[in-house]
Amino acid sequence: MDFQPVKGTRDFYPQEMALRNWLAEAWRRVSLRNGFVEFDGPVMEHLDLFRAKSGEEIVSELFSFTDRGGRELALRPEITPTLARMVNARINSLPRPIKWFSIPRLFRAENPQRGRLREFFQWNVDVIGSDDVFPDAECIFTCIDLLAELGLRPEDAIIRIGSRPLTTAMLRKVGVGDDNMEAALAALDKRGRVTPEQFGKSMSELGLSGEATGELCRLQDAKDPSDLLQEGLDGAAGAVGDLLRLRELLETMEAWRFCRFDFSVVRGLAYYTGIVYEVHDAAGRLRAVAGGGRYDNLLEVLGGPAVGATGFGMGDAVLAILLEQAGKLPDLAERLDCFVVTDTDDLLPSVLRLVGGLRRRGVRTDFAARARSLSKLLKEANRRNARYAAIVMDTGRIGLKDLAVGEQADVALDDLLADPAKYFGR
Amino acid sequence: MDFQPVKGTRDFYPQEMALRNWLAEAWRRVSLRNGFVEFDGPVMEHLDLFRAKSGEEIVSELFSFTDRGGRELALRPEITPTLARMVNARINSLPRPIKWFSIPRLFRAENPQRGRLREFFQWNVDVIGSDDVFPDAECIFTCIDLLAELGLRPEDAIIRIGSRPLTTAMLRKVGVGDDNMEAALAALDKRGRVTPEQFGKSMSELGLSGEATGELCRLQDAKDPSDLLQEGLDGAAGAVGDLLRLRELLETMEAWRFCRFDFSVVRGLAYYTGIVYEVHDAAGRLRAVAGGGRYDNLLEVLGGPAVGATGFGMGDAVLAILLEQAGKLPDLAERLDCFVVTDTDDLLPSVLRLVGGLRRRGVRTDFAARARSLSKLLKEANRRNARYAAIVMDTGRIGLKDLAVGEQADVALDDLLADPAKYFGR
Repeated sequence: MDFQPVKGTRDFYPQEMALRNWLAEAWRRVSLRNGFVEFDGPVMEHLDLFRAKSGEEIVSELFSFTDRGGRELALRPEITPTLARMVNARINSLPRPIKWFSIPRLFRAENPQRGRLREFFQWNVDVIGSDDVFPDAECIFTCIDLLAELGLRPEDAIIRIGSRPLTTAMLRKVGVGDDNMEAALAALDKRGRVTPEQFGKSMSELGLSGEATGELCRLQDAKDPSDLLQEGLDGAAGAVGDLLRLRELLETMEAWRFCRFDFSVVRGLAYYTGIVYEVHDAAGRLRAVAGGGRYDNLLEVLGGPAVGATGFGMGDAVLAILLEQAGKLPDLAERLDCFVVTDTDDLLPSVLRLVGGLRRRGVRTDFAARARSLSKLLKEANRRNARYAAIVMDTGRIGLKDLAVGEQADVALDDLLADPAKYFGR
Repeated sequence: MDFQPVKGTRDFYPQEMALRNWLAEAWRRVSLRNGFVEFDGPVMEHLDLFRAKSGEEIVSELFSFTDRGGRELALRPEITPTLARMVNARINSLPRPIKWFSIPRLFRAENPQRGRLREFFQWNVDVIGSDDVFPDAECIFTCIDLLAELGLRPEDAIIRIGSRPLTTAMLRKVGVGDDNMEAALAALDKRGRVTPEQFGKSMSELGLSGEATGELCRLQDAKDPSDLLQEGLDGAAGAVGDLLRLRELLETMEAWRFCRFDFSVVRGLAYYTGIVYEVHDAAGRLRAVAGGGRYDNLLEVLGGPAVGATGFGMGDAVLAILLEQAGKLPDLAERLDCFVVTDTDDLLPSVLRLVGGLRRRGVRTDFAARARSLSKLLKEANRRNARYAAIVMDTGRIGLKDLAVGEQADVALDDLLADPAKYFGR
């Protein structure tokens, strides 16, 4: 038998795991300082939960199976349906606004591509319980706070902000009916990735003349929401007002420099109802790093009350590529504080006593289980990425060697254990 | 449609999530200070990987499914097969001993019971690449270091240590043949949970007389490995020597007080080859908190070389029950450093500027999005578990109120942003 990992999954060897943990810690730290609290749901849900949100088409994109009780289950492709289910179950006892984040592991039964695997992690940040623009600004600010925390600048990544109601109003204005709306949104979503000819063709298949398509492109390319007020778009005043208010809030919080309006941002998912946005590398070469927006209908669709909701998801794969390209990945190798050695067999019990005591006191410690020549042992200490080598010289004396500068201090074993912070700084 | 979680899975609302994170952080902290590095594998593996380790019987205990390419996949019920697969794939480049830990999410397709769900987390600690007793001592020390780190004492939890070779030698001595060995190990494993009559019956079904069963119980109840040296057990000298050396190592590391020899510890899994152990609540009322031992054949079974391996797994569910019973669960509610408010609409921009600046500087900050009466706002600050309320009084002045003691300082907004650590300690 040949034992290979499943195609499209990842093995996290210690180096890859360190990167995954570093990203998750940044996501968690930024979420908490922005006033969000963490939740998670099960990896598997009833298939119906995803069907109810996304329609029957979603089933072919899921890992699904039937359990021994005959129930149709699926591995979650996103956490938003779970979020809505959990909030609905306690809607009357949770104080609002509900500011929750999560770092779920997600699954999709697709053929793997660069930056798009069958198993991945996604940071999710959501605010539930308010129809105001404040929560949209909160989510976008948190997203920007994360980008800045990781060392990214507006020259590396930007947030393009659009509006679902303005987009559908534009489509209606040029003649797209309700029946074709989803297909038109999907075609619009692809506009930036195809030639103008291909885009024109997809629009003509939806019944739009070349003139109507040109008009649509002109509206889509507006640089400022105010420019759209005189275009006779349904509901434009409210949607434009929301966007202008959003900019005002983010300017006050000194975060707008990462943002720009871009009405070509559509977001594929049918469920968005208001402001929508995507984070892209500034060069526009990669898939979206993050995406989100307002989804005011989802809780109701899943059996709850009508409650405003907004949020975004950020995957780990494209973010890691972007950080690597921007030279922002730090050295993540785990370090030991101390590697304990001896060149004398009889002193191994003192090695063990020191190791046990240091570990109990929080010092990251490992040791060589056999006495050998000091030159070999110091080599091993370096290979283990230790800051200090502790050389046990007799049952009570330690040579504490700083492996960066080479200096060695003579310390009593009991002094080292009495105040390890003095020597190791933790 | 009715949207319920899948039976036997858990929703992690913020309170449960805080406990899960607290446990994972303790597992991670203790692993790192004991010189282990973290890895993880995919949630899904080829079904054959689990078949190869555990036999065809395992299939009925797994969530398995067929992907669109016709491959039989399964959700991992344990991470050891993945560990062996990953180590085998890089066996020639990984320096030994390989000291790895993991905190995987695992799955089993059973009916849920107390402390045993269909989805759970398990801390895994393994050392690969050495046949010595040192790595067994390392793993057991790390397990004890975790128990002590969480505030548990030998009065709360103990590690019962046995030996697979001694157990099989005892069974052989009283007449159990190779054909019945697995069934006899399984029956022995249950001995502590059934009456002596039931145990006698299960042994008689394996062909043992009452006298042979009595002799087996006498051997099993030996208190010290040395007592078994004169019993004519096959390979006893080596196995007893390992146990005595293990005790000596753990005594030197001042950890033996959590341990005792107990030859009735069998561990159900067929793959153990040496020292085995289980952590139990001292009262013996709960399922095992952790279990492990030496498994020297697994890497070879999965297509790799013959390499010594030892390790243990500790689940989250029973540990949480034990900690709760011992009164060792801390208050885990998330705290805000600062909740920013104002009673004047015109000052909301200053609220936002302060909020944005504090968050960027690492201060956990949230705010009231509307101006209201200060008494209502301070109530909200308390409900949000904030240490301080920052009351914006004019565009440049802040009343910083310590919510624990009630004292209020008058601070310039820019001073607060210039040195937040001075006011918030982070």
